[in-house]
Amino acid sequence: MRELELIAGLERVLAPGGPRVVRWLGDDAAVVRSRGYAVTSLDTMTEGVHFRRGQLTPAEIGGRACAAALSDLAAMAAEPGEAYLSLGLPAGTQVDEATELATGVQGVAARFGVTVAGGDVTAARALTISVTVVGWATDPGELVGRDGARPGDVVVVTGTLGGAGAGLARLEGRAADTTLSEPVAAELRRRYATPEPRLAAGRALSTLGATAMIDISDGLATDARHLGLAGGVEIALQSDRLPLTPGVREVASALRQDPGGFALSAGEDFELCACLPAAMADRTTAAGVTVTAVGHVVAGPAGVTIDGGRSELAGYEHSL
Amino acid sequence: MRELELIAGLERVLAPGGPRVVRWLGDDAAVVRSRGYAVTSLDTMTEGVHFRRGQLTPAEIGGRACAAALSDLAAMAAEPGEAYLSLGLPAGTQVDEATELATGVQGVAARFGVTVAGGDVTAARALTISVTVVGWATDPGELVGRDGARPGDVVVVTGTLGGAGAGLARLEGRAADTTLSEPVAAELRRRYATPEPRLAAGRALSTLGATAMIDISDGLATDARHLGLAGGVEIALQSDRLPLTPGVREVASALRQDPGGFALSAGEDFELCACLPAAMADRTTAAGVTVTAVGHVVAGPAGVTIDGGRSELAGYEHSL
Repeated sequence: MRELELIAGLERVLAPGGPRVVRWLGDDAAVVRSRGYAVTSLDTMTEGVHFRRGQLTPAEIGGRACAAALSDLAAMAAEPGEAYLSLGLPAGTQVDEATELATGVQGVAARFGVTVAGGDVTAARALTISVTVVGWATDPGELVGRDGARPGDVVVVTGTLGGAGAGLARLEGRAADTTLSEPVAAELRRRYATPEPRLAAGRALSTLGATAMIDISDGLATDARHLGLAGGVEIALQSDRLPLTPGVREVASALRQDPGGFALSAGEDFELCACLPAAMADRTTAAGVTVTAVGHVVAGPAGVTIDGGRSELAGYEHSL
Repeated sequence: MRELELIAGLERVLAPGGPRVVRWLGDDAAVVRSRGYAVTSLDTMTEGVHFRRGQLTPAEIGGRACAAALSDLAAMAAEPGEAYLSLGLPAGTQVDEATELATGVQGVAARFGVTVAGGDVTAARALTISVTVVGWATDPGELVGRDGARPGDVVVVTGTLGGAGAGLARLEGRAADTTLSEPVAAELRRRYATPEPRLAAGRALSTLGATAMIDISDGLATDARHLGLAGGVEIALQSDRLPLTPGVREVASALRQDPGGFALSAGEDFELCACLPAAMADRTTAAGVTVTAVGHVVAGPAGVTIDGGRSELAGYEHSL
């Protein structure tokens, strides 16, 4: 690959950002005017582990990595600021494919007012895309960690669950004999290919007094357990309350799985799971966020229970 | 690998940091009290491209990735603050190896007062270590970019050049018939295996009024060209002025290369190349930094010349 052509292509795609960016691509580091508290997370996806090139377009791969990183900021209720992109490109990668990856990152970033302020490109054995995102908060009290859940809180999730997992199962041909309408099938693919970081919902839930919050990247059972362990409480989930994405029931059935169990363990929905004081749980609609109550917080052994039983459902990836 | 054991090991190794870190490992994102301007860079190294496991210990691989990232902050004259670590581990990686990698990162970070404030661990096809570093500046005028070189400036480098490249050549067995004394050989290996980010030197050069600065990661010829192109000036280097690391002459000779040419194109020394107003070039010792003048800045076609001739010497990697 012609490196200079590649870099010129990337610089064309990554539109320079807002008034807070002092130095941008092309220097040793990016320089950004800061505010109060920096909230930083990074997310790495590599081919053959987190995606396959045949299943997603390069723009989808890039956008998905950016969305996954921003989802961590959503879970903290941080205001998103900048993203930094690291591309690891195997020999033979075309310039067009690399710039399309960056286009995907830029597209998701721009939709949330995020500037791609820097990054690097290196050779790699497998296509690897790593996105570091930085959000800002003027008061750390606005941010929501994993550790504040209290007995009596209601456990809510945004959106619907299982859609990304069902979309992936279909992409992989594991649910070939499912009959779904065209819009339902398209939406399942979309849930996997172009997930939406719930930034506005995260901030609304913070305003409502969320005591603990996490994004659902490894499956609700695994991620809710993190809240239980961090808070020293039991997160009691009810599987019949889960808001299933349309089509999940049919895909789970084709995979001979219980739909609730499928939605509890399927990852990458990038919805939020939050614990809310009970008094606030019915004010969510007024706050502009649609959630479903899926359980409650009780005093008990730290962790998660499902329908009253302790769960050892494993997600497919743990993050540090 | 047992994920929970791995994460427990990493949390043991990555000592929690100073008073500015509000939230650390174990949440969706790290939260750090900010100051003025955030200076951010990231650096990714992957096995088979940037290192080989047989040539370096896991701690050296980790430390080197951290040093390479911090070197970008040195080149900006930023005060280092936090690091974020992303580990991509192939199947079969032992917990001990992963924690040793993190120990290497932590060791270099701690020596420079840097807190490893967060990160993630994922599966990968090849061992990949990505370090994002954040530095801070209260006044952006303290920071030195690549674009300010002016005709009349003196071009200086810190330390010595070619040592990392010579060390790598020996590790790869490409200079097998070189006879070097034990300390010289050990120092060449050290220059490759445990490079030193020149953070104090970068800040001293900023104080002296450095107009442009870059770290030498791709070889002086390539990196000086970046300064020429960014500043619209000619960087005129003199190859007989280069401060060669002891042993480089012998290794270059074994490789049938000119020592100056070898030192100009060998990468990963992580020294700094800066342009200084001529009046300041002899005050460096007083400012506590040892440099060697290797050329000067002239009005001319933007780029680099070596001994008066335009150079097309290629480095082995370009960074975005």
